[in-house]
Amino acid sequence: MLGIDPSLSATGYAVLEEAGGGLHALVHGAVRTTTATPRASRLLAIHDELLNLVRTWNPTAIAVESPFVAENVRSAMVIGEVRAVVLITAASANIEPCEYSPAEIKQVVTGYGRSDKQQVQDMVRRQVTLDSEPTSFDAVDAIAVAICHLVSSSRKAALGRLAGSQAP
Amino acid sequence: MLGIDPSLSATGYAVLEEAGGGLHALVHGAVRTTTATPRASRLLAIHDELLNLVRTWNPTAIAVESPFVAENVRSAMVIGEVRAVVLITAASANIEPCEYSPAEIKQVVTGYGRSDKQQVQDMVRRQVTLDSEPTSFDAVDAIAVAICHLVSSSRKAALGRLAGSQAP
Repeated sequence: MLGIDPSLSATGYAVLEEAGGGLHALVHGAVRTTTATPRASRLLAIHDELLNLVRTWNPTAIAVESPFVAENVRSAMVIGEVRAVVLITAASANIEPCEYSPAEIKQVVTGYGRSDKQQVQDMVRRQVTLDSEPTSFDAVDAIAVAICHLVSSSRKAALGRLAGSQAP
Repeated sequence: MLGIDPSLSATGYAVLEEAGGGLHALVHGAVRTTTATPRASRLLAIHDELLNLVRTWNPTAIAVESPFVAENVRSAMVIGEVRAVVLITAASANIEPCEYSPAEIKQVVTGYGRSDKQQVQDMVRRQVTLDSEPTSFDAVDAIAVAICHLVSSSRKAALGRLAGSQAP
């Protein structure tokens, strides 16, 4: 599965697979764009790189870290812009993306909704085997949202089985 | 040229050409999406239809109505999302989109920055020949942003020539 932490300057991504009862990160990194580039080109660059990842790794699920709050209208617009790029990429791969708030992700990954970046990184390292060091917290956050999705889905599946077994 | 008035529920579009000293709308309409459809699919539908327009009409310029203010963070995010779709479409056609605020467009098209939709429609009809009735104000607004761009660019060109003739 593909985890994405969208941001205009550095969109983190990570492809995770479940193998041997554990989680393994096949690839992780960040798409970086600079303020010297026009906004439209920055968004297209993020779109193209994510689309490339989707085509290369063919994920069956896409999880996205989506802040549903923002400091102000200006930052909310930018959040919306990058979010749209991710949603379009997922939709064009026929995958309905699952969105999780930063607090939800921290809660699931570290057990505490207000943990800091270092705590998230420490827990990510314990839960996922990595071939290489994460180059940034953006990549770590992308791994974290992927973990969050896997945990949440398996919880939902377990609850579903429980509900099923209780049915008459 | 292509004019776009982005909105999640109805994105207006219009393709204008200058012919015989006047302006002619080759096509105009709106891409509609409903709340019953997941957000990612709505954004992708807008993206796909705009990309289709760009490929069909091959515009040399794209003008976009962009509100830079919003009532609240929630609406700002949605504005950002649809804006990103338009910007990506333009960038993927190698066109740097030109953005104009609603007040700028009204000012140029009607001479008054706070004119209402009916006044904009009346002035659009006087300035552009249409083969068919606009189906909605969204299409009218898309024609209006295209007019705004053409007027603004010719003003800039005229000022450029003036500055050039005054050079020593």
